[in-house]
Amino acid sequence: MFFHSSKLQYEVKVDTPNPLFAKMLQQAIGGVEGEIRVAMQYFFQAMGARGPAKYRDMLIATATEELSHIEFLGHAVALNLEGAPTSMQDDAAKDPVVNAILGGMNPRHILSSGLSAMPVNSNGIPFDMSHVYATGNIGADMLANATAEAGGRVLAARLYNMTDDPGMKDLLSFLIARDTMHQQQWLAVIEELGGLEAALPIPNSVPEDHEAMAHSYVFLNTSLDKDAPEGRWTSGPSLDGRGEFSVAPAEPMGQAPSLGDAPPDSGAQTEQMAAPPKRRAPKKK
Amino acid sequence: MFFHSSKLQYEVKVDTPNPLFAKMLQQAIGGVEGEIRVAMQYFFQAMGARGPAKYRDMLIATATEELSHIEFLGHAVALNLEGAPTSMQDDAAKDPVVNAILGGMNPRHILSSGLSAMPVNSNGIPFDMSHVYATGNIGADMLANATAEAGGRVLAARLYNMTDDPGMKDLLSFLIARDTMHQQQWLAVIEELGGLEAALPIPNSVPEDHEAMAHSYVFLNTSLDKDAPEGRWTSGPSLDGRGEFSVAPAEPMGQAPSLGDAPPDSGAQTEQMAAPPKRRAPKKK
Amino acid sequence: MFFHSSKLQYEVKVDTPNPLFAKMLQQAIGGVEGEIRVAMQYFFQAMGARGPAKYRDMLIATATEELSHIEFLGHAVALNLEGAPTSMQDDAAKDPVVNAILGGMNPRHILSSGLSAMPVNSNGIPFDMSHVYATGNIGADMLANATAEAGGRVLAARLYNMTDDPGMKDLLSFLIARDTMHQQQWLAVIEELGGLEAALPIPNSVPEDHEAMAHSYVFLNTSLDKDAPEGRWTSGPSLDGRGEFSVAPAEPMGQAPSLGDAPPDSGAQTEQMAAPPKRRAPKKK
Amino acid sequence: MFFHSSKLQYEVKVDTPNPLFAKMLQQAIGGVEGEIRVAMQYFFQAMGARGPAKYRDMLIATATEELSHIEFLGHAVALNLEGAPTSMQDDAAKDPVVNAILGGMNPRHILSSGLSAMPVNSNGIPFDMSHVYATGNIGADMLANATAEAGGRVLAARLYNMTDDPGMKDLLSFLIARDTMHQQQWLAVIEELGGLEAALPIPNSVPEDHEAMAHSYVFLNTSLDKDAPEGRWTSGPSLDGRGEFSVAPAEPMGQAPSLGDAPPDSGAQTEQMAAPPKRRAPKKK
Amino acid sequence: MFFHSSKLQYEVKVDTPNPLFAKMLQQAIGGVEGEIRVAMQYFFQAMGARGPAKYRDMLIATATEELSHIEFLGHAVALNLEGAPTSMQDDAAKDPVVNAILGGMNPRHILSSGLSAMPVNSNGIPFDMSHVYATGNIGADMLANATAEAGGRVLAARLYNMTDDPGMKDLLSFLIARDTMHQQQWLAVIEELGGLEAALPIPNSVPEDHEAMAHSYVFLNTSLDKDAPEGRWTSGPSLDGRGEFSVAPAEPMGQAPSLGDAPPDSGAQTEQMAAPPKRRAPKKK
Amino acid sequence: MFFHSSKLQYEVKVDTPNPLFAKMLQQAIGGVEGEIRVAMQYFFQAMGARGPAKYRDMLIATATEELSHIEFLGHAVALNLEGAPTSMQDDAAKDPVVNAILGGMNPRHILSSGLSAMPVNSNGIPFDMSHVYATGNIGADMLANATAEAGGRVLAARLYNMTDDPGMKDLLSFLIARDTMHQQQWLAVIEELGGLEAALPIPNSVPEDHEAMAHSYVFLNTSLDKDAPEGRWTSGPSLDGRGEFSVAPAEPMGQAPSLGDAPPDSGAQTEQMAAPPKRRAPKKK
Repeated sequence: MFFHSSKLQYEVKVDTPNPLFAKMLQQAIGGVEGEIRVAMQYFFQAMGARGPAKYRDMLIATATEELSHIEFLGHAVALNLEGAPTSMQDDAAKDPVVNAILGGMNPRHILSSGLSAMPVNSNGIPFDMSHVYATGNIGADMLANATAEAGGRVLAARLYNMTDDPGMKDLLSFLIARDTMHQQQWLAVIEELGGLEAALPIPNSVPEDHEAMAHSYVFLNTSLDKDAPEGRWTSGPSLDGRGEFSVAPAEPMGQAPSLGDAPPDSGAQTEQMAAPPKRRAPKKK
Repeated sequence: MFFHSSKLQYEVKVDTPNPLFAKMLQQAIGGVEGEIRVAMQYFFQAMGARGPAKYRDMLIATATEELSHIEFLGHAVALNLEGAPTSMQDDAAKDPVVNAILGGMNPRHILSSGLSAMPVNSNGIPFDMSHVYATGNIGADMLANATAEAGGRVLAARLYNMTDDPGMKDLLSFLIARDTMHQQQWLAVIEELGGLEAALPIPNSVPEDHEAMAHSYVFLNTSLDKDAPEGRWTSGPSLDGRGEFSVAPAEPMGQAPSLGDAPPDSGAQTEQMAAPPKRRAPKKK
Repeated sequence: MFFHSSKLQYEVKVDTPNPLFAKMLQQAIGGVEGEIRVAMQYFFQAMGARGPAKYRDMLIATATEELSHIEFLGHAVALNLEGAPTSMQDDAAKDPVVNAILGGMNPRHILSSGLSAMPVNSNGIPFDMSHVYATGNIGADMLANATAEAGGRVLAARLYNMTDDPGMKDLLSFLIARDTMHQQQWLAVIEELGGLEAALPIPNSVPEDHEAMAHSYVFLNTSLDKDAPEGRWTSGPSLDGRGEFSVAPAEPMGQAPSLGDAPPDSGAQTEQMAAPPKRRAPKKK
Repeated sequence: MFFHSSKLQYEVKVDTPNPLFAKMLQQAIGGVEGEIRVAMQYFFQAMGARGPAKYRDMLIATATEELSHIEFLGHAVALNLEGAPTSMQDDAAKDPVVNAILGGMNPRHILSSGLSAMPVNSNGIPFDMSHVYATGNIGADMLANATAEAGGRVLAARLYNMTDDPGMKDLLSFLIARDTMHQQQWLAVIEELGGLEAALPIPNSVPEDHEAMAHSYVFLNTSLDKDAPEGRWTSGPSLDGRGEFSVAPAEPMGQAPSLGDAPPDSGAQTEQMAAPPKRRAPKKK
Repeated sequence: MFFHSSKLQYEVKVDTPNPLFAKMLQQAIGGVEGEIRVAMQYFFQAMGARGPAKYRDMLIATATEELSHIEFLGHAVALNLEGAPTSMQDDAAKDPVVNAILGGMNPRHILSSGLSAMPVNSNGIPFDMSHVYATGNIGADMLANATAEAGGRVLAARLYNMTDDPGMKDLLSFLIARDTMHQQQWLAVIEELGGLEAALPIPNSVPEDHEAMAHSYVFLNTSLDKDAPEGRWTSGPSLDGRGEFSVAPAEPMGQAPSLGDAPPDSGAQTEQMAAPPKRRAPKKK
Repeated sequence: MFFHSSKLQYEVKVDTPNPLFAKMLQQAIGGVEGEIRVAMQYFFQAMGARGPAKYRDMLIATATEELSHIEFLGHAVALNLEGAPTSMQDDAAKDPVVNAILGGMNPRHILSSGLSAMPVNSNGIPFDMSHVYATGNIGADMLANATAEAGGRVLAARLYNMTDDPGMKDLLSFLIARDTMHQQQWLAVIEELGGLEAALPIPNSVPEDHEAMAHSYVFLNTSLDKDAPEGRWTSGPSLDGRGEFSVAPAEPMGQAPSLGDAPPDSGAQTEQMAAPPKRRAPKKK
């Protein structure tokens, strides 16, 4: 069950409001790299967690923190929209600066939200929950979480570079730090469970006779004019200790696919049917 | 540039067509764990790859392989739809088996595609490209790819368990194997680049003064009634060698947010405004 | 800032797990009538609230409660999926009951989530945040919230009627009660602000000279063969006390629209252009 | 059945075309606050209307009017796009005004529609029909409609403030007026059916033994550091006359959720299983 | 401007209601082959029509007809849902027929709409307006319309084959007929404008020096192991009379793409940068 | 099965990078008129092709080519983003040119992709696979393909007009040429199968007794105040040779729809029910 405190997790100051930066910040709220995504992803993973209870606890604890991140970023968006222009001059030449701001803002910050944050990304696209990855497999979920936090920290670093506002830089430096920790903690779970060798291949519970092992450690080169790129993945032991990497040229092992003719009454054209219904006679005129 | 061979990468046999399994298989084509996603993800990562060229080559080589996976899975869906019922009895009691199949199938396999594969998941939802994660950061991208392959292998393992069809089991065992390799190869890139310690935190190019380091290795416990779950992430050195893990109770460090009154002419109710426009006089009747 | 307690807001018991009911329950989590929607809607409204602070407090308090509703419903879904069939018989006739269940379930409950809740509706469609209505106008927002709770209570009532499971009925009776309260509280805000007469028309801050008042209280009958349906809206004083209702037949007051010819080089066909580029001469053969 | 007249419902004049305002106007066509939404919402509510026929008639009459609103707004968009720039200078400095317009326009107004209206919002996002709320419950539907018209009138008021064009102001003043009427008429249905006391809680047909009435009129305070915000909703009779409002601190009444171990062959990691399949022996090298 | 008559365009009778067929019929309302799509597509094409006015008139006339098709199909869905089961038995074995129907229905027909039509397809996916194709080019639009009607007639034919209900067959035979006419009328526009030779290539207004004509009539064979499939497109005059068809093997004409190193401060990993920021020293412990 | 060559199909040169044009070009990658769409559409049509094998071969050959178009356009986007501004000045007046570029760019080109192509359109909306039209009917599919290529060529022509960059003009002239060929080849299939008369109405396999032929060639005029627009579609023989075109005023042929009262326990309001549950007594106070 959730509770709320009236203060923000971190202080939000905006020295110079900037409606274009408000649009950019939306990516950190409603983008695939954003806070709604991680809050909901950890929440749903927690609800589906099976096995040792502490991972469930860890997930819900951090889900709760991410909700607080949405909250302070939402406040940051609203503060950046303070004083934004809300009307336009018909002749853009009159005030190109104002018109450039209006053209660059998310118009729905004016039209739909009344100058406050929305659950959308920097293109104004609402977040959709298909990005909540929660598989029931703790290995897959931890990788998904580390991925989300890596994307999130890349985004925060780019936002940090984009602004000169001291308050915003301070807030983003906190976000960068928390993304560091969250990357760490999800990968630490894998380390605690024996590290990558023990975890891989995910799921590590698949019986080996369900797997065509001859194909499990071969880098297939589909290039027609280049050798396979050599690296850790082309020779030497596999990361899971079960095999040796090798390289092979990609080659068809299957048949040429064919579905044959269309059955009658299938909605196809008669020309696709072996025994089509008799063609109607053209009407005499 | 791409080329095509007329044969499939792997042989597809369906001993007993099953239209419900056709619906399930769609998850491996058009689901977030599916082949369209990885094909396009590796393709767009390759197009945006900067730095050592061999990673680009690796990405495009495997993107190309994934296109071939779409192709053989698409054929598997069509073969599972052979002979599927395409009409219903008005009285479901007449033939409950046929009606249960019709109710369980994806109706668009009949209505929209003429008994062949579609770029949709097992709920019939079309794949959308927001799931193509390509950040321009090779660390984030490699984690995203390992995540995708982990989800894909979990899915393939579940599909394997779901069917008794020998041909389908054979095909899925190949898919399980290739997902093993692909998990390996993306994580091998990270190993080649120095391993997790060197790669973390992603992006590892963020200057430390952009990061509020005091918050970078602290597990925040937002629980009101449980201690922080202890583990690799609560004490000891961080995975990136830059710090020591610790635990702290989560506490607000910021202000109580307030946006004040709504400006006049902002589309708010007058009651939200400090100095609202004068209230109209109610019409006398 | 948010915090969490390890116990659910309400006890969840499932006497007889039913994977089909798990699918149905998803509507209450990820449907437009569901808990993710209201949690996020109240949260974003709170973040954008201007004017008296107590409405912000009220919004965030209830947003927090709705997060707890997601949590117990998520647990209810998982408990309903306990023991669900995860493999199929190729010949549906062999066990029509199992096959009907498999056909009726959300396949992603098996394939994607490992038998736990997902942020999707009963069709498996992920919730998308475009349904978070937060306008910055407290009147519009309160109506939107009452609407959401009305839809939610309709849904809960239908789910209640659909199941015979005592634990589920108990949980749903709690949800019905909370939806009652939430309907009440949002409409009570409007009452507190003077009631509908004072609140309407929303926004009540629009100056009357921005409104073509002659058209403000006229029911337009667009029917060609029926009189306007008579009722409270066709005569008598308007609900906002500003006018009198009347009825009028709908009639065009505007011009016939015309855009004229297409400009050259606009990508139109030449036939749409007044002075098309000279037609190429067909190639001699 | 529908019919059409060749003239618009209201005259559309654009004194000074403004392609940026064309983008803004799209919100009134294809936004959630827009005309496609209300046209389709009233249409589908009419098709599902049960009970007194006059509400069906009223719904379809106004649905028909809203189609005409799409039409005149579509014309307004096209007229605002007359003469819009369709090519760019490579060096933005050459003509910053033209480049700011091109950057601020919806690019698809040039690229996809040939300078005419599209069924998209001001971010260019196509309207999707998930926003058509039609529950089969007249109370819920009337609230949903009043909500839609409130959002619509807020939007129209903001668009009015945004432009200086006399023709556009005139058109928007008509839209503001019609939104006034439509707000009125939907709420008048509730008044005609006995007012809020009779209508609430929606659905008012739920037997009281389906509802855990002890929880129906209690404002739950989830805040850890603030008292419940006091108002009409914290004491006094409930709006439906069935109870008395009160306040209580939110508290968990349920269990700590637990799903136990993952079953074998469920696609989880072995570490999540009580009796995992025997771990494979690492390959000797 | 639109008007409405209280009667349906065509009579709707359902002899034996079938909730599964109701789900199927939704494809004809809210599917990409359905009536919402064509109604809106012709409507938006009409609003953007430039050039001869009669095409605009034709578009709006048929758009209006399609609205009436939505209406009678919506009624057909509701009638097929009459008497549908709305509760389930916990033990599916108790009544497999009822449970198969409940599993096969669109659950939202019960939960969300109260047994009436929704603007969704047969998977329950809401229609989205991205499928409204209106380019401003009459040739492209007419092809798009013929395509939509072809898909629509294929769908109607499949629905006809799926049901035994006489009323439904009668309704579908009318739909099949109207789709015939609509296919005809859009292609007749192309014929009236000179036929395919004059219309192609669309847009026919592109100056020939904007086109690399050497590549305009060559079938590129990308197959590695099959000859190009021979047909009307591999030799002989092109359909537009401007060239001769030929065949060529596909070959790269471009460079190997390369983006070089990532710039500093771009959010990439240091390993992707030519001159990365100096690596931090690992913390001493 | 697919293979890859390391060189692009066509050379990509960008003389003057332009991040706004990069945004525009995205329409040709991820728009409905773009290359992902046609690549996937031809691919899925090929996988579902029944009847003569050469059409399958043709489809897969061109699908493969379209993948190469994605590739060179993706490179063109990245090259246009070289040197794009990635930080903003708080005071827009300081450098209006830079700020207008930042406001006009797709912000995710900076924030999400690290200055490279994304699978999105010019509004930043990810492509979704619902636009892959593959019906199993070769006539419908060929029309759909010609439509896609017509939209694509319209788009390419508009992009050509929009830029002054010689490299981009050269690339687009190649795209215009290939779109010409692809329009030709899909329509050539119809010609090869007997031309439009033989192909229409699609599907041409529908028995005539499934069609209400009296309605098949009548243009219905739904206009209340204009005569039917006269043309090829109002008189003379139909394009399929089966009938004669005529004109008729649209008239209702059906009943006034009615669904009667709502059943008890259906979640409706009591006022919608013939015999509602007894109304609760208001609580005494």
